[in-house]
Amino acid sequence: MKLSQLLGLRFKDTPAECSIASHALTVRGGYIKPVASGIFSLFLPMRRITHKIEAIIRREMDAIDGQEVLFPVVMPASLWDESGRYTAVGRELMRITDRNDNPMVLGMTHEEAAVHLARDTAQSYAQYPFMIYQLQTKFRDEPRARGGLIRVREFTMKDAYSFHTTWEDLSAYYKEAHRAYERVFARAGLDRVVSVESDNGMMGGKLSHEFMLLCDIGEDSIVLCQACGYRANLEVAACSYPAQPQPDCLPLEKVATPGQETIEDIANFFKIPATQTAKAVVYQRNDNDALVVCFLRGDLEVNETKLRNAVGCELHPAEREGELAYGSIGPIGITDKAQVFVDESLRGLNNIVCGANEEGFHYTGVCMERDLAAAKFGDYAKLTTGAPCPHCGVPGVEVSRGVEVGNIFQLGTKYTETMGMRYQDENGQLQTPIMGCYGIGVGRLAASVCEVCRDDYGPIWPMSIAPWQVHICALRAQEPAVQQAAAELYNQLTDMGVEVILDDRAVSAGYMFSDADLLGVPLRLVVSPKTLERGCVEMVARDKSFKADLPLAEAAGLAKGKVGEMLAAIDGVADQL
Amino acid sequence: MKLSQLLGLRFKDTPAECSIASHALTVRGGYIKPVASGIFSLFLPMRRITHKIEAIIRREMDAIDGQEVLFPVVMPASLWDESGRYTAVGRELMRITDRNDNPMVLGMTHEEAAVHLARDTAQSYAQYPFMIYQLQTKFRDEPRARGGLIRVREFTMKDAYSFHTTWEDLSAYYKEAHRAYERVFARAGLDRVVSVESDNGMMGGKLSHEFMLLCDIGEDSIVLCQACGYRANLEVAACSYPAQPQPDCLPLEKVATPGQETIEDIANFFKIPATQTAKAVVYQRNDNDALVVCFLRGDLEVNETKLRNAVGCELHPAEREGELAYGSIGPIGITDKAQVFVDESLRGLNNIVCGANEEGFHYTGVCMERDLAAAKFGDYAKLTTGAPCPHCGVPGVEVSRGVEVGNIFQLGTKYTETMGMRYQDENGQLQTPIMGCYGIGVGRLAASVCEVCRDDYGPIWPMSIAPWQVHICALRAQEPAVQQAAAELYNQLTDMGVEVILDDRAVSAGYMFSDADLLGVPLRLVVSPKTLERGCVEMVARDKSFKADLPLAEAAGLAKGKVGEMLAAIDGVADQL
Repeated sequence: MKLSQLLGLRFKDTPAECSIASHALTVRGGYIKPVASGIFSLFLPMRRITHKIEAIIRREMDAIDGQEVLFPVVMPASLWDESGRYTAVGRELMRITDRNDNPMVLGMTHEEAAVHLARDTAQSYAQYPFMIYQLQTKFRDEPRARGGLIRVREFTMKDAYSFHTTWEDLSAYYKEAHRAYERVFARAGLDRVVSVESDNGMMGGKLSHEFMLLCDIGEDSIVLCQACGYRANLEVAACSYPAQPQPDCLPLEKVATPGQETIEDIANFFKIPATQTAKAVVYQRNDNDALVVCFLRGDLEVNETKLRNAVGCELHPAEREGELAYGSIGPIGITDKAQVFVDESLRGLNNIVCGANEEGFHYTGVCMERDLAAAKFGDYAKLTTGAPCPHCGVPGVEVSRGVEVGNIFQLGTKYTETMGMRYQDENGQLQTPIMGCYGIGVGRLAASVCEVCRDDYGPIWPMSIAPWQVHICALRAQEPAVQQAAAELYNQLTDMGVEVILDDRAVSAGYMFSDADLLGVPLRLVVSPKTLERGCVEMVARDKSFKADLPLAEAAGLAKGKVGEMLAAIDGVADQL
Repeated sequence: MKLSQLLGLRFKDTPAECSIASHALTVRGGYIKPVASGIFSLFLPMRRITHKIEAIIRREMDAIDGQEVLFPVVMPASLWDESGRYTAVGRELMRITDRNDNPMVLGMTHEEAAVHLARDTAQSYAQYPFMIYQLQTKFRDEPRARGGLIRVREFTMKDAYSFHTTWEDLSAYYKEAHRAYERVFARAGLDRVVSVESDNGMMGGKLSHEFMLLCDIGEDSIVLCQACGYRANLEVAACSYPAQPQPDCLPLEKVATPGQETIEDIANFFKIPATQTAKAVVYQRNDNDALVVCFLRGDLEVNETKLRNAVGCELHPAEREGELAYGSIGPIGITDKAQVFVDESLRGLNNIVCGANEEGFHYTGVCMERDLAAAKFGDYAKLTTGAPCPHCGVPGVEVSRGVEVGNIFQLGTKYTETMGMRYQDENGQLQTPIMGCYGIGVGRLAASVCEVCRDDYGPIWPMSIAPWQVHICALRAQEPAVQQAAAELYNQLTDMGVEVILDDRAVSAGYMFSDADLLGVPLRLVVSPKTLERGCVEMVARDKSFKADLPLAEAAGLAKGKVGEMLAAIDGVADQL
């Protein structure tokens, strides 16, 4: 490819809408162009990157006996009715109507389609286990598309579905898939991906893991314990509160606290730490708008995933307070006005301050065992940095940000059961297959690599997924000697099967190098009047880790060797996983 | 791949809904499964075929300097408003609304998206020409989905868009693209594809060609002239009628013809050939429902494409006759009741019979020059087998059926003009780029190959796109010697990079061979107690063109050589195009 012919603008200034680096660099480098909110067209460099990622994924899915199939983007609503998701899933499921007034959906995930494909054709135990996967365009009508390819509405995803006759078999395959995922991320050049236990959300099922790329722009929070290696999404990380010695109970007193509404107000007013207060957070159920109040220690935050699972229904922050006394909500005498959930962090505490359910008044001297003897406690709080590890109990967990680059689920029989998929076991009895599912977003993975493999000037693509392997900069390309040497090098490398982009434009060195930085090709060869004087081509790594003069006659061979070395280094890591 | 693990049923009976062979074979062979009307899931064998077709297409598009990009499936309606197609295209364009009430469309073709991607980034003449292409899922809400993957609603398509500064440049590139298409079809193993001039339909523009696979199930009719090589879609093939000596004019007479309504009735009633009658065909305009009547010689049919282009508006067969006298409509005295079009076939005729515009009456002795002196003639008829060639005039054209497997269009400035795409020419003047576009449906191509490469027992896939290259049948797979020999052969071939499917099931030879026929792998290796007794493996071509015993020790190498030979034979043809 010659850079002079490459479609796509490269430019210096970060567009206003780009708040994260990978978004800015992929727009500034001519990789992507927005078509609508969360919907992008890809230029050639990004398409080449996603091709390579797709090839890596296919290789690893085939290695665990995956059969590549293709499910449709547009599916009849009746299929999603069978599983119950047509009504259960919110507006992120795009519902449409065809010319014959048939309700249809745009696939955002394909469990239903997988069961549809398999159910008539895998009716004997002898055909199990098997795994089918696809790479296909998906649409999810996200309310908050953001960050370029990190969170989009339309995306290419690899989704895989395995079918088993026993939980043991699923569990064994699940571990294989887990290792295959580790290899996918390693082959894509990522070394900061950890898998964490996660919440199953709308997918249903039992065990699930997310693969998280640790980096600051992540929307997810991950709990890591150095002591025991525990890792989990903050959403599911359990909290525990070792019993602390409590002071003797003071009498319960109602105190006027005019204008004191937040925990900070109250802590200042009474000159106590937030840990000696109880906080109230109010939600409404999505199904009937009824109020839900969660009480927890004043220094903690509600973990909405845990609370939602306890309530058994999706929640949203309260838009009305109902009969509740805003700013003075407390656990004493509130149960008839809302559904109440009390967090474990409050268990056994003495002499705390909380709202008195009367505007402008708080109680002091609240003792949980004395004043709220009937309270049932649950775990509804977010784990915080430094807290005890939910697994080993050692204090000092870390909470880091992460981008989810893949997920795997032990689905169980949620879809096979509802959709009537059965097979005959060895005794001729009908049984319901057990499923697992496994997803990776291709574009998000590309953007995530960009996010962690870059410098101030552009992406530094790993050799395994770089749009090209070698970038030739022909400085003073208008000079015949340079032009000829660069063209020869280009042809030699191309004939050797190396993927080359040649900057053949008559532009300044600065312009040329800043474009090369934005294209992020890992190996650069510079041909210029000066290097030719030395009989050389200059080889430079995009990440500045090495630099060398290559004799002109051997340059192509040596560069090809270097490309091979860099590929082997990445695959070497992956092959050991 | 082991056949025992392959998902998908193979069976003998043709399902009722399958009226064409490729549909039946792809359903019976476990290649596709319907999800809704015109919407299919693909099993592994078909996905492997489409992969190979995609690779062939990419190779040829890259060879003519194509840049692979990716456009979204879901696009904002505003983009299609810019070109005017949001309102101009009918219900085959799927219109949807997102969660924020934005009107969107599902991409059925991507001219708008191509201009959107290119318009900000190709603003200087120096960047031209360039071509961008994608392989992406498309949706077209066809009213008449049929024939398996031949005519579907959802499909994977390669669509390419080239941009030029002059018509000459477009024309030169168009020829290159034409040759690339010929190579694509040749590499896919088709030798009966011809390109024909076609109607531009809703795409707009000037010259266009369709690539037609000649076969009986085609929905299109193609005119072929053996004398001069002229080829065209029947839709656009011009008709000409060499002047014939006419008898002297008889007087015009109105004759009672009770109950005589069709041309056949009239010909019988008057004992004249249909060529001595004038036929009336009545349509309504889609835009205002006004009546349109086309008169032509009684033996001919209306070419609706030509008539639509003359009317300048889409048409549908009349649902009401208005004031017209059904069964007795004629050209004399009708002009105030409908828009009238008179076909060239009637020019200069004497003494013909036509309706008298009065129920139950016809005129005889109608002489066109005398009685319809004001008539303006046009070409609105379908060319028929045996007629004179529109190009060389030699009588005897053939009309054959064809399946459209690709098309190319000289679009011109229809999209760039309406969507405001401009570039600066060498003099700094703003100019509008000229476009071409180029499409191939991947699934239809796969089904078309199946349609023409098959026998009664299944497809005979060309080696270049076969799901696997070698099919090992291990007869009596339960016998350890067979099992071991087959497994070794499988491993040897796999290690050599040959794509193998191994039938390792303990089933009868008949069952095994009929499954192998349905999978259509071009080269079959049979391992059985008998062949092992001879120290051999039997190699058989799926198309029965050869059969040989291979010594066991050399079988893998010889089979690999044969695969290479068969691939080279196909590529050899393509390379000469």
